[in-house]
Amino acid sequence: MLEQLFYPKSVVVVGVSENPENLARVIAQNLFEFQFNGEIFLVGRRRGILFGREIYPTMEHLREGIDVSIILTPAHTIPEIMEACGRKKIRWAIIESGGFSEYSEEGAKLEKEVLRIARKWGIRIVGPNGIGVINLENNFVAAFPPLNRKIIRKGKVSLLVQSGGVSLTYLNLLSSANIGVSKMVSMGNKIDLNEIDYLQYLIQDPQTEIIGLYLESIQRGRELLEMARSTSKPIILHKANIGETSKEIAKLHTSALANDDHIVETALKQADIIRAKDFRSFINAVKVLSLPPMKGNDLVILSRSGGIAIIAADSAERYGFRLFPMKKSFQERIHNYFRAKVIKPTNPLDLGDLFDFNLYIKILEQVLKIKGVDGMIFQHAAIGDEIQPSRRLIHTAKELSFRYQKPVAFCYLTEEEELAFIKRTFDFPIFTEPEDALSALAVSREHYRKRSLSKEKPPDYSVDFNRAKRLIRKARKEKRDPTLPEALEVIRAYGIPVADYQVIYRKEDLTKAMGKIGSPVALKFISKEGIHKSDIGGVALHIDQIEKAEEVYDRMKRIGSQKFIGILVQKMVSEGKEVILGGKRDPSFGPVVLFGLGGIYVEVFKETSLRVAPLCRDDAEEMIFEVKGGNLLKGVRGERPSDISALIENLLRLSQLMVDFPEIEGIDINPVMVLEKGAIAVDARIILREGS
Amino acid sequence: MLEQLFYPKSVVVVGVSENPENLARVIAQNLFEFQFNGEIFLVGRRRGILFGREIYPTMEHLREGIDVSIILTPAHTIPEIMEACGRKKIRWAIIESGGFSEYSEEGAKLEKEVLRIARKWGIRIVGPNGIGVINLENNFVAAFPPLNRKIIRKGKVSLLVQSGGVSLTYLNLLSSANIGVSKMVSMGNKIDLNEIDYLQYLIQDPQTEIIGLYLESIQRGRELLEMARSTSKPIILHKANIGETSKEIAKLHTSALANDDHIVETALKQADIIRAKDFRSFINAVKVLSLPPMKGNDLVILSRSGGIAIIAADSAERYGFRLFPMKKSFQERIHNYFRAKVIKPTNPLDLGDLFDFNLYIKILEQVLKIKGVDGMIFQHAAIGDEIQPSRRLIHTAKELSFRYQKPVAFCYLTEEEELAFIKRTFDFPIFTEPEDALSALAVSREHYRKRSLSKEKPPDYSVDFNRAKRLIRKARKEKRDPTLPEALEVIRAYGIPVADYQVIYRKEDLTKAMGKIGSPVALKFISKEGIHKSDIGGVALHIDQIEKAEEVYDRMKRIGSQKFIGILVQKMVSEGKEVILGGKRDPSFGPVVLFGLGGIYVEVFKETSLRVAPLCRDDAEEMIFEVKGGNLLKGVRGERPSDISALIENLLRLSQLMVDFPEIEGIDINPVMVLEKGAIAVDARIILREGS
Repeated sequence: MLEQLFYPKSVVVVGVSENPENLARVIAQNLFEFQFNGEIFLVGRRRGILFGREIYPTMEHLREGIDVSIILTPAHTIPEIMEACGRKKIRWAIIESGGFSEYSEEGAKLEKEVLRIARKWGIRIVGPNGIGVINLENNFVAAFPPLNRKIIRKGKVSLLVQSGGVSLTYLNLLSSANIGVSKMVSMGNKIDLNEIDYLQYLIQDPQTEIIGLYLESIQRGRELLEMARSTSKPIILHKANIGETSKEIAKLHTSALANDDHIVETALKQADIIRAKDFRSFINAVKVLSLPPMKGNDLVILSRSGGIAIIAADSAERYGFRLFPMKKSFQERIHNYFRAKVIKPTNPLDLGDLFDFNLYIKILEQVLKIKGVDGMIFQHAAIGDEIQPSRRLIHTAKELSFRYQKPVAFCYLTEEEELAFIKRTFDFPIFTEPEDALSALAVSREHYRKRSLSKEKPPDYSVDFNRAKRLIRKARKEKRDPTLPEALEVIRAYGIPVADYQVIYRKEDLTKAMGKIGSPVALKFISKEGIHKSDIGGVALHIDQIEKAEEVYDRMKRIGSQKFIGILVQKMVSEGKEVILGGKRDPSFGPVVLFGLGGIYVEVFKETSLRVAPLCRDDAEEMIFEVKGGNLLKGVRGERPSDISALIENLLRLSQLMVDFPEIEGIDINPVMVLEKGAIAVDARIILREGS
Repeated sequence: MLEQLFYPKSVVVVGVSENPENLARVIAQNLFEFQFNGEIFLVGRRRGILFGREIYPTMEHLREGIDVSIILTPAHTIPEIMEACGRKKIRWAIIESGGFSEYSEEGAKLEKEVLRIARKWGIRIVGPNGIGVINLENNFVAAFPPLNRKIIRKGKVSLLVQSGGVSLTYLNLLSSANIGVSKMVSMGNKIDLNEIDYLQYLIQDPQTEIIGLYLESIQRGRELLEMARSTSKPIILHKANIGETSKEIAKLHTSALANDDHIVETALKQADIIRAKDFRSFINAVKVLSLPPMKGNDLVILSRSGGIAIIAADSAERYGFRLFPMKKSFQERIHNYFRAKVIKPTNPLDLGDLFDFNLYIKILEQVLKIKGVDGMIFQHAAIGDEIQPSRRLIHTAKELSFRYQKPVAFCYLTEEEELAFIKRTFDFPIFTEPEDALSALAVSREHYRKRSLSKEKPPDYSVDFNRAKRLIRKARKEKRDPTLPEALEVIRAYGIPVADYQVIYRKEDLTKAMGKIGSPVALKFISKEGIHKSDIGGVALHIDQIEKAEEVYDRMKRIGSQKFIGILVQKMVSEGKEVILGGKRDPSFGPVVLFGLGGIYVEVFKETSLRVAPLCRDDAEEMIFEVKGGNLLKGVRGERPSDISALIENLLRLSQLMVDFPEIEGIDINPVMVLEKGAIAVDARIILREGS
């Protein structure tokens, strides 16, 4: 659907002048320099000639139906220009000006106005406040910073970048690493088109094989996840704006709202989006994904230096690789190659004082031929006379890597200029230190491992949906959250076991209720108002005498005054391990399920795990053991293990509930007691979305 | 003392030939190329002429008293050459050959032989199995890889590197970053001289301002710590050989024994040795230390890109910096500079579409002038026409950084070749991404913070040293470890409170003992043999009846048979929080004190903290709260806090005990019960060193 935006037949650049400091002028310059294969029109306040083309003083001089307008004029002039675009039947506007919501409230109003006009005319907007759009397939380079045609190479990586400066940085870093680019959008404030729209296009785009994203906010997280799951193209995301302080400037910068980073982290993992924590790891990920995949965990390290082999082995262990154990026969074969026999053929293989490049190639190929070997690091270093043969070595390493379809992560330590030359001219990624190469190989391994798993489906339990719906609808109608018994009924309707209880509205019913449930009981205050009952003394535990119960009843009724509507008499569950289950609705990623240990653990260790719903069984199990204390449930010090599968089932049912009811803002099931057999909810609270 | 080694007046290179592939020949070549300012002699098997000098066929042709011999011949020839060196009164040998203990058992024997001969003649050895020694002060470049005089620059960083390949890598990386080197030793197998000897020299060396170390093993850790504490020169250590797999190759490589990395990590922190985890962070640390110090925590970020400002702010938060809040007046002053007012002057300050380099300099200086600002990141990006003015900007940034004595970490994103040029030719460190700059500034901040602290002294408690000594001596005499009551007495002699107990050897004494101590009691098996008493049922808790106690006595006597010598009747301490105190003797770092929570915490969370003894109060306190569960001692859920200062005192007394008795291999005080008032040891075990 964005075909016309990326492949326009005609464009107009609005805002140009003959003044050499004019910024829009550079847009035109880039289009001419890269030899854009479409028609170019120019509009500016003053008539003139630029690059052999007339500058029209208004849009009115243009013919109708130009495909794309690229606008870089002061913010306050944009609404009028958009009207003019509309009249001229232009359907795409790339607005590169700043001064909108990222700058001031006035700017925010202006932004709304621009969007309103666009909607009226059916114009789609890129930006504002980005540096533009680049497509190297047709040399549509509509960006205002001056770009160098010799440096930016066409290739298979497409980029969606929120910030202008970061767009340039990535263009530059990719070029330096000799990684070609297909398309790039500097998305800016994303008032209309956003990453989801562009992503949809790039996933279909045959020229794009790897997608890189830089985002300061994820506003449609759920769609992002779905999109990532729908494609086999690797998606690498550099998400900034994580900290408290950066939130503040991000707001100024591209009006980005910060996300809860714990949710972001988990969600991206669930959808196999590769997260890059900085520029370097982004580039390393792109590099490794342009090599054959690392299909397993068995690695060989070849190194010209024993010391660097050790450093590489440290890194390999850090990233969980196994150093493939070389068979004796292979060792002997290699051993015979060595001129001076002062080095042992092991893995890592220290090529030490072997100064024979042909031998390196022989060994490299022998290693790649071994069936169990999944990939390799070749740690090379050269200066002076060895620089020339090293270039040949790199060529061969590339050829062998692709012939045997195994990644050879080539680390090369040499003079900086030579490295720059190699990186720019060889179509093969070069790493500079083992840590980079190994972290990258780990990215490849994880990516292809996840891709090869047949994704388990979330279970679909048969539940009493209608009962839950009735309860929730009733509360909503009365503009309140569900009461304690309603909340317990909702989760029970979804098959989560709840400790036996009775609700009573009169003190006289206490005896009967206690008789039915059996002592000891817990007594809990019921109200229609959202109050923390334990804060006001609304919970009494271990009550086993009716006199005591009556006393409690009176006290609760007294403290609660009008808020009091009754008492919940509940079976005490004292044994088992306390855990907390929760659900919340993230504005970007939608329903999320949480897990944590209860009691002192949550207070002291403050650990919780979470997953974006719906969960499948593996997710639920991982959640439990992601929390360090999760192992307590397996039984320590001779205790019998707790019923972990019952707990998993509760998590899955909670996930289903969160997915089924968008009306629910949050749920707290705290605690759930995990017994030797079964896992029983003792308390629950449900918060509905306001105005839902 | 190593003066003559680094500044020889005459040297002989042994092993040279006219053959262009000969390695020793390159040593001579380097000496000539760098214009070593001393006399050079050459020895090789065949007579010949090399670089205008005669090659002598044996050492016998040399005059007596040449300062240093540099040897690169097959390993088996070295003993004979060493004898010849001895006879010729040469006092220093740099052995660059491999094939010793790193290669085979035979090589290990050879190594011992070489060392024996050296000792006989009073020769000190560098290596073997390194690439040599470099001193750029007198151009003594005695290394066998061909080095480029144009690339390696003289400066103030000295390096001690265990591995040859890593030596070259560091030389190369430092050159690329335009960091000058004073001296470098490739230490190899360190059979004689090791890092401690070299370090001692470099600390005194007026040309060395920063010391960099690469080690695969730390064999004299305690001395390393003492040395680091004795100097104000920053020491940066890249310690490799951390993982299980790398241990194996390190052994092959330079015969390095791996250290327990947890101890290494802590010990280095205690001595303010900066630990670099990889090449990059080593270089970043060197870079930042060549800037003025980061004396506080208040940072300003200036950036040409709002997006990269956000990335920098994320990193700043990650490293605990505060973004200095700009005063309104400053904001206004800056605001007036802006041509197009589309950017808000805040911190980070987004220089956005300000395209005026003079203005950058003005703002930079204004910011450095602000009193509360401790340092700055300047995030710059330029291509094309902006490259020239950027060079001037960098010059000025350097000048201002030194004028105001505040670090300006300059991040520069530009074309790779330009970056290589700048890095090589400017005497000012350039960072490539915010993450690097901020991690480096954090290194500077921590280093100068620690330097500015007046180091607290470990306390010196008055203890009953003689009593402890008597007990330990008695056990050693009998070639056994102390019994349970002896161990309890030893720690009690050091002032660690122990739960009341009586030792009885006859069942008849049970009643009296229980009467004296008061029920309930714990009964514990006493033996002279090192057995885990709880494994054999040798511990009975909560005994409050004499009949029960007698039954236990009989049972323990029966199961213990000859090993049984008596029973310890001890007051039960049931309240309080269980913690574990321990001591162990690290072969490299000496006495170490450990702390952990007891009970299920140690099993599930497996957290312990440690410090190299002697501890001061702050160390002990940090240890307790380094363990996540340490907060339990502060009291959670309304509990009263435990007596943390009593616990600290126990740790300090244990530290003193470990320091006073080198005979002790390990101590376990498990558990100590930390009460509301006091912290009491309930059980203790002491292991003595074998043959000590």
